[in-house]
Amino acid sequence: MDGSVDPRRGRLLIMGGAAGPALLVRFVELAGSAAARIVVIATASESPETAEASYVDRFSALGAGSVEALRLTSRSQANAPTVEPVLRAATGVFFTGGDQERITSVIGGTATDSLLQTLVAAEGLVLAGTSAGAAMMSGTMITGGDGTGVTAQCVTTGPGLEFLPGVLIDQHFAQRGRLNRLLSAVARYPHELGVGIDEDTAILTDGNCFEVLGSGAVTVVDAGTAIDIRVPRTGPIALAGACIHVLPAGYTFHLTGRRPVIGTPAAERDEAA
Amino acid sequence: MDGSVDPRRGRLLIMGGAAGPALLVRFVELAGSAAARIVVIATASESPETAEASYVDRFSALGAGSVEALRLTSRSQANAPTVEPVLRAATGVFFTGGDQERITSVIGGTATDSLLQTLVAAEGLVLAGTSAGAAMMSGTMITGGDGTGVTAQCVTTGPGLEFLPGVLIDQHFAQRGRLNRLLSAVARYPHELGVGIDEDTAILTDGNCFEVLGSGAVTVVDAGTAIDIRVPRTGPIALAGACIHVLPAGYTFHLTGRRPVIGTPAAERDEAA
Repeated sequence: MDGSVDPRRGRLLIMGGAAGPALLVRFVELAGSAAARIVVIATASESPETAEASYVDRFSALGAGSVEALRLTSRSQANAPTVEPVLRAATGVFFTGGDQERITSVIGGTATDSLLQTLVAAEGLVLAGTSAGAAMMSGTMITGGDGTGVTAQCVTTGPGLEFLPGVLIDQHFAQRGRLNRLLSAVARYPHELGVGIDEDTAILTDGNCFEVLGSGAVTVVDAGTAIDIRVPRTGPIALAGACIHVLPAGYTFHLTGRRPVIGTPAAERDEAA
Repeated sequence: MDGSVDPRRGRLLIMGGAAGPALLVRFVELAGSAAARIVVIATASESPETAEASYVDRFSALGAGSVEALRLTSRSQANAPTVEPVLRAATGVFFTGGDQERITSVIGGTATDSLLQTLVAAEGLVLAGTSAGAAMMSGTMITGGDGTGVTAQCVTTGPGLEFLPGVLIDQHFAQRGRLNRLLSAVARYPHELGVGIDEDTAILTDGNCFEVLGSGAVTVVDAGTAIDIRVPRTGPIALAGACIHVLPAGYTFHLTGRRPVIGTPAAERDEAA
């Protein structure tokens, strides 16, 4: 399907941090509401008990049929055979915030990772994540940096878990003024589409298109159109002819076509469908 | 002349604040070095004595033939007949930082304003300004705002003195993380080209092209290419399909063509000329 998010495909709900009730409700609904079986994974968090308890309470209060935490703080846990039945029974999996590198180092390449990839691609599992749980979905993941200006030093990156390949996600975007580091990242890797997600804002995507949800905006930086890029070891980067889109709720972006879908607002499309 | 700054035309040297010696030397050279007659106008400053003394000392130390301050803190001073001989004798005029609205309210529409416009356009006067002295050169001037995200509320604007029409200049750009407010301003006024100048960085322009000088970068945001813009009273702005250029020293931008000049680096063009 071109121009809107296909509800029949596996979906990713990627939140920029500090998600309010409207976004959390949307996740519960996508996972099946009263029929939802939600699994919370707090691997990114320094205090997984606290993060697990908080999201189990919130999703339960928002009407999810069942919610449980899956504690994965070591690679042996992420490779344990006990994980598979839990994930296969789930209709939605939620990754909390914290440190995205804990997610990639504990889960990357394990049985949990492979199974999640399969369930999202083929079985219609809804995979959601906020903050670090959003960053790790990228093909290339921002791991740090909040420097001044657009320079090679102002951002560090590493491979993400690639639930959404070809995309480089940043979060807490407007709140932490991260456009400079996103510009720096796409200047270095212009094949990656930079997607900066504000707090209490999310993208819902089937891998082909994404729709913007929530109270903020999603900023897309496309260095693919750039006519000149120079990334010196020190000093300012040159990036001439990049494209930028600031998209609030209701806007849809075509990922493979690298263009916003302008025309019928999403609400009207939904009614017509 | 297409693609480079014409040295025979009147020139503007517009600095993003915190200008180091290299940029100040460039101004002194453009004004004629030992033959330079520089006038410092500290109208923007809350303490004009201090700002005047500081720049008079610096330009003198950098080899300017003569440097004097012109105190303009009221409209009657800016309309006084004593101003004309001072400005007519000058080869360079320098506006200090402070509050850009003091410049527009004290000088806007006065004999000083008219004379400066004439001298820059027809007589080859070099007009320089830093920070507030840069902002006031715009067609539309940013007067305030440093909010979160790209919203109508996060920036306030007013008319500048229009030495460089069609352009909306912001300063201290990377240092104060001002890309959001520049995006907001051009979303509201897409005919204005947004030009964000870092500290210790400047553009030198003949009104047709500008060249980037200094240690930082100049960020150009062009909303003219946008295919969809929505500016709600509250909440995030939509701006789809804008163009962004991050240009360090040596890059040239064609203002009327709204495109960077990519190809022969400025240094080689200078040698060939």
